[in-house]
Amino acid sequence: MAGSIYGKLFTISTWGESHGKGIGVVVDGCPAGLNICEKEIQDYLALRRPGSSAYTTPRKERDLVTILSGVFEGRTTGTPVSLIVYNEDQRSADYSRLQDTYRPGHADYTFDQKYGFRDYRGGGRSSGRETIGRVAAGAIAQKLLARLGISVRAYAAAIGPVTADPAAFDANEIRRNPFALPDAQAAVRAEAYVQECMRDHNSAGGVIECIADGLPAGLGEPVFDKLDACLGKALFSIGAVKGVEIGDGFAAARATGLTNNDSFTGSHPAAAQSTKQAGGHPAPAQNAGPAGDPPVLAKKTNHAGGVLGGISDGSRLIVRAAVKPTPSIAAPQETVNRDGQPVSLSIQGRHDPLIVPRAVVVVEAMTALTLADLLLQNLSSRMEYLEQIYKNCATPHNTRR
Amino acid sequence: MAGSIYGKLFTISTWGESHGKGIGVVVDGCPAGLNICEKEIQDYLALRRPGSSAYTTPRKERDLVTILSGVFEGRTTGTPVSLIVYNEDQRSADYSRLQDTYRPGHADYTFDQKYGFRDYRGGGRSSGRETIGRVAAGAIAQKLLARLGISVRAYAAAIGPVTADPAAFDANEIRRNPFALPDAQAAVRAEAYVQECMRDHNSAGGVIECIADGLPAGLGEPVFDKLDACLGKALFSIGAVKGVEIGDGFAAARATGLTNNDSFTGSHPAAAQSTKQAGGHPAPAQNAGPAGDPPVLAKKTNHAGGVLGGISDGSRLIVRAAVKPTPSIAAPQETVNRDGQPVSLSIQGRHDPLIVPRAVVVVEAMTALTLADLLLQNLSSRMEYLEQIYKNCATPHNTRR
Amino acid sequence: MAGSIYGKLFTISTWGESHGKGIGVVVDGCPAGLNICEKEIQDYLALRRPGSSAYTTPRKERDLVTILSGVFEGRTTGTPVSLIVYNEDQRSADYSRLQDTYRPGHADYTFDQKYGFRDYRGGGRSSGRETIGRVAAGAIAQKLLARLGISVRAYAAAIGPVTADPAAFDANEIRRNPFALPDAQAAVRAEAYVQECMRDHNSAGGVIECIADGLPAGLGEPVFDKLDACLGKALFSIGAVKGVEIGDGFAAARATGLTNNDSFTGSHPAAAQSTKQAGGHPAPAQNAGPAGDPPVLAKKTNHAGGVLGGISDGSRLIVRAAVKPTPSIAAPQETVNRDGQPVSLSIQGRHDPLIVPRAVVVVEAMTALTLADLLLQNLSSRMEYLEQIYKNCATPHNTRR
Amino acid sequence: MAGSIYGKLFTISTWGESHGKGIGVVVDGCPAGLNICEKEIQDYLALRRPGSSAYTTPRKERDLVTILSGVFEGRTTGTPVSLIVYNEDQRSADYSRLQDTYRPGHADYTFDQKYGFRDYRGGGRSSGRETIGRVAAGAIAQKLLARLGISVRAYAAAIGPVTADPAAFDANEIRRNPFALPDAQAAVRAEAYVQECMRDHNSAGGVIECIADGLPAGLGEPVFDKLDACLGKALFSIGAVKGVEIGDGFAAARATGLTNNDSFTGSHPAAAQSTKQAGGHPAPAQNAGPAGDPPVLAKKTNHAGGVLGGISDGSRLIVRAAVKPTPSIAAPQETVNRDGQPVSLSIQGRHDPLIVPRAVVVVEAMTALTLADLLLQNLSSRMEYLEQIYKNCATPHNTRR
Repeated sequence: MAGSIYGKLFTISTWGESHGKGIGVVVDGCPAGLNICEKEIQDYLALRRPGSSAYTTPRKERDLVTILSGVFEGRTTGTPVSLIVYNEDQRSADYSRLQDTYRPGHADYTFDQKYGFRDYRGGGRSSGRETIGRVAAGAIAQKLLARLGISVRAYAAAIGPVTADPAAFDANEIRRNPFALPDAQAAVRAEAYVQECMRDHNSAGGVIECIADGLPAGLGEPVFDKLDACLGKALFSIGAVKGVEIGDGFAAARATGLTNNDSFTGSHPAAAQSTKQAGGHPAPAQNAGPAGDPPVLAKKTNHAGGVLGGISDGSRLIVRAAVKPTPSIAAPQETVNRDGQPVSLSIQGRHDPLIVPRAVVVVEAMTALTLADLLLQNLSSRMEYLEQIYKNCATPHNTRR
Repeated sequence: MAGSIYGKLFTISTWGESHGKGIGVVVDGCPAGLNICEKEIQDYLALRRPGSSAYTTPRKERDLVTILSGVFEGRTTGTPVSLIVYNEDQRSADYSRLQDTYRPGHADYTFDQKYGFRDYRGGGRSSGRETIGRVAAGAIAQKLLARLGISVRAYAAAIGPVTADPAAFDANEIRRNPFALPDAQAAVRAEAYVQECMRDHNSAGGVIECIADGLPAGLGEPVFDKLDACLGKALFSIGAVKGVEIGDGFAAARATGLTNNDSFTGSHPAAAQSTKQAGGHPAPAQNAGPAGDPPVLAKKTNHAGGVLGGISDGSRLIVRAAVKPTPSIAAPQETVNRDGQPVSLSIQGRHDPLIVPRAVVVVEAMTALTLADLLLQNLSSRMEYLEQIYKNCATPHNTRR
Repeated sequence: MAGSIYGKLFTISTWGESHGKGIGVVVDGCPAGLNICEKEIQDYLALRRPGSSAYTTPRKERDLVTILSGVFEGRTTGTPVSLIVYNEDQRSADYSRLQDTYRPGHADYTFDQKYGFRDYRGGGRSSGRETIGRVAAGAIAQKLLARLGISVRAYAAAIGPVTADPAAFDANEIRRNPFALPDAQAAVRAEAYVQECMRDHNSAGGVIECIADGLPAGLGEPVFDKLDACLGKALFSIGAVKGVEIGDGFAAARATGLTNNDSFTGSHPAAAQSTKQAGGHPAPAQNAGPAGDPPVLAKKTNHAGGVLGGISDGSRLIVRAAVKPTPSIAAPQETVNRDGQPVSLSIQGRHDPLIVPRAVVVVEAMTALTLADLLLQNLSSRMEYLEQIYKNCATPHNTRR
Repeated sequence: MAGSIYGKLFTISTWGESHGKGIGVVVDGCPAGLNICEKEIQDYLALRRPGSSAYTTPRKERDLVTILSGVFEGRTTGTPVSLIVYNEDQRSADYSRLQDTYRPGHADYTFDQKYGFRDYRGGGRSSGRETIGRVAAGAIAQKLLARLGISVRAYAAAIGPVTADPAAFDANEIRRNPFALPDAQAAVRAEAYVQECMRDHNSAGGVIECIADGLPAGLGEPVFDKLDACLGKALFSIGAVKGVEIGDGFAAARATGLTNNDSFTGSHPAAAQSTKQAGGHPAPAQNAGPAGDPPVLAKKTNHAGGVLGGISDGSRLIVRAAVKPTPSIAAPQETVNRDGQPVSLSIQGRHDPLIVPRAVVVVEAMTALTLADLLLQNLSSRMEYLEQIYKNCATPHNTRR
């Protein structure tokens, strides 16, 4: 388990290099009975493919996915779901020049240090193509969440210094502009900024925000597997991410208790109607204690981003990831080769001047995978859940032989 | 995680050496709302304490257990349950002689090889006292299983060459004789055999059998975490165990398909009454497929020992563990010391001529811990279980800030 | 992680159904720099293919393997190695009749109980074809072990009631007869026995033994991840295994301490020559303690099967697995269908009357995978190992920005 | 494994509630042969104790630690190290008033939702006292790192809006002022700010920075267990953390490729002297490939914070965590009780107006624990490491019986 396996119960095992035969993922632990088909996964993968805009690589990547196992007659069977995307359009020659050069901002040097050598073609395992496995598995996680009424959506919150205005948030705008910004005016400014970067043979970064609605309260395992801790790991595991925030994030460090605390308000109207079964929890079992089931509450504000004490509180989950500028740039850079000699490097090839728009679905997929896993883990949190599932357990007690 | 942690969801982390300050265990993953108190754990621990018979060590071990965390007002809270037993009656002087001698059949030599040195007092971590943590945690697992209607019981199936007659099985007999045999006549013969061993300053082994009734069908995760694979690991992890069987075990290797296959019979009467909710499974959800819920069946025989394809089939679970004779004997043995010089060794001290009776509860505890873990894991097996637990999930969607 | 992932550091994730698109495995955690090619894996897979004898299925299974990732210029890169075998010769029609019938001794019923439905074609995930992933990964583990001078070999110890004579052991005989017996005379008797079974439309079981030579002392993690516990899980995870023994196994339960204990003898001659670096351990580091490195010893006998206190002792590792008779037989059997109605079943198709010869390599592969994993885990056992690997750690301390 | 276990090889299992009998941790996986004593752990724990300044709680917490197991004659034995701190000065009465009230910003509500009820005394498991286990284990991790020449240090980078000036960094200043700021002038301004918060019965947050020097290149496992991903999880698992950054963090999102990329420079002088064994790696083994060992490089800048592609690059590791203001404030807040009724709450008790100074050592401990774990994991990265440790593996091959 050298790092390419993620998740405890909803587990994914990804594999594949940029210029090897293909990229894939094995999903072990998806519950049986989830309807899923290749087209749904293919459509989700399309969100990370290079687009038709001028702001992504001109590489053609069809990335056709095949379900190899674990789905029978349109439903998951409970056994591993194996997904494969064969690589195409591999111009390895583009990269052989880089075999002996350590590109700044890339993993060339650290892979060599760790393993003694590396597959240098197109970044090998550290290529952005590695995320295909995450997104393909994320499509299944999204389907699972949707069935429980949970939605997860990501978008760009900033492109370089250009920030989307939360007050202008328009979900429909996200897929209209090439930057995945939910704010049309910000998209105009982002365009100017990115064009300037491209003129300078330079590149840009940005911030991706992801929100989840419909989550039950109770997700996340204290102490180390807190919801925010799991999300922190999930998002930092994405190649270019250098920072992660939950709710107000770093701004909370400058706030005070009075401004940062979110006040609880009375029971939520929707919840009030089904008092006894609110919160996704069954009616109190015989020995659930004298106090009865706790009430479902709303909060006046959500500085916390939907997490209290590492556990979802039933309000909107809000996370953000800072994405560094693409390290592959055509402008000349100083570096060193494998012989320890200084060289000047100008990376040509077909690179994204801005990775943020294509990384949006990766952030979304990692969030969905994390939530699916924690939903499964939380099934073990109460004795009454076990009693509910295993009740009427009429097993035939055979004679011994 | 160097080997002292067991279980995936119902996880125990044991610690402690024979002659250190104490022995203990942390149980992480016990669902909230399970009633448990110190007395119940103490009573279960009493089953592994040296008895008053002539066939166990004369050491006095009160082994008083304290619950340090995770239980509040008589119920588990969902957070780690830490249990501690302080060591008493440590005659370390008895062992200092053994500091430089490798006792045959013990872990002295292999610990030295693995770690470079060892805590030589009374076997250190490889002492039988290590099992206190397992049994204390097993008491909690047994409580969880009992709440779901599942019982787990172990007993001696053989003492040396003396075998209990299955036809004479009497559950009440198990705690009546000092050998935990369910057959009074076998106990008489066992007594003669063990007395002879003791006269010769020698020791005896035996076989422990464990059965579980009331298990739902469906426990065990294909492919590697099969029910029998998990039990195999659980029982082989007990110090002196050299063999494990499920159902007919090695006898199955000599049988034929015709004699070894267990025929299914029509639906079990008890199950027939609650047709739709049989098998511990809920009524079919909307998309449970056209075929409806599978029927609950009984089998004519149970050569399989309750496991088919690594998954419980609803009939009695039957496992057996072969326990080697106690390696600590007073008869002289040839061995070698830490300087590589041959020495003759006669182990005095206070040792059990027969460990089987005290190991019975350890086998039972490990079986219970394994079943509790697999019961939790199986909650993730079907989408309809998630829907059942998370339905009525009326979460208040707060405004964003 | 619903059961199809095995190993902690040398981890395999297998996938695939008998009649799906293919079968495969992802190996995560193989160290970088191991020479491996497709042909080596293919040759190892050949050992589990149906042979040309009359005693295996007449199905043709070429099982061509492709390395999809993780190997570059003939060496493992440290990233996941993905292996795939596409299914061929799938006569699903043979099985559609079985869609609604619960075959005795198979997992049909328990999969239905666990998941609500199943991929019924050819046993689906519970088919013997599942072992292709284990064997393919096992080929890599064997290569790793060989590089360290460790050999792992399995063979049949018994076919039904016919037992190989240990005194007649001939390693060359194993691949000469169709039963993988290391004893030519036993093979003649086995042939007669299996022919009789086939005449009766019946099937046979047997016992597989696996030995490993060249292991360093020190493998296995106390308490729960003992070498024997890990092997117990590994072997019980193979479909038809109903019993596992280490060393003398169940016979040890009938032995006494005097006959079962293995005496240590003086330092092994081979070890004596390299006194200070014996046992696979480096020369004592400065603070390795006053006592110096422990000596490497041999034992007079090996009733323990190479494991003391759950840790390898440097002598030959010996394990055995009892394999039940193939449950698919042509003789008529009583069973029940999915509607709960009794039916008579006669399984035609192309089935192995005896699975033992083809399971030999599966036992070997699981043993090799387990040993590879424990070799990696054991690297963490001593501070001096860390010091040895990380010494001369001349890291450049950059200025902060 | 419901969340209170952290680490894969260097594993800690923490337990305990604020007002239960005690708090503790079991460390499983610490290599044998590490010198450690109670005093060292006690001294490290002292760093998280309430200080004598006006800016921490006036509670008296001696937090005396005892080593219960795993250390023999001053060195770790390779078996679990169990550490316990008994609780004292528990004024449970202070909290009984809060039994039915959901404190804003606390985990009261989410624990109730998750588990159905909670240990309400002093926050129970979600209390800051939970971090005692982390810090006690962190002391051991720090000792391990120090033995390999690695140092880990944390300090406050900001208190509320008051930021330390990196140019004024003075390591000696950190323990001189009550805010753990490495900048004396910033400490003066912080004092004014916190005093104002306290006058308002309000509280403050801040930012903690942690740096590690002396790390070998190569730590971190691609893809999901990247060094930054593991640190992200580690720091987000600390109660009040709402944001984490590596290197330039969120500022990188506003930078360009040209300004953010760190240029490599020629081989580091120190490394050049031991060319062949640089980087903590052994001389190339026979089959290490034609290219020879990669050179050890320095970088001109360190915007990356010491991590490239999720793997340490040998330069300084830099991480930051945003800590929210203490939610317990005396100023009145609106909230709701367990009956769903609105109540006004003014939290009296003895609370820290600012948790940052006491959280500094927690951030440091979690970083140390993460690095120790990844150092152990990295031992498996190359075949040549295995060959190095297991060479001269003169195992005596005994005859079979």
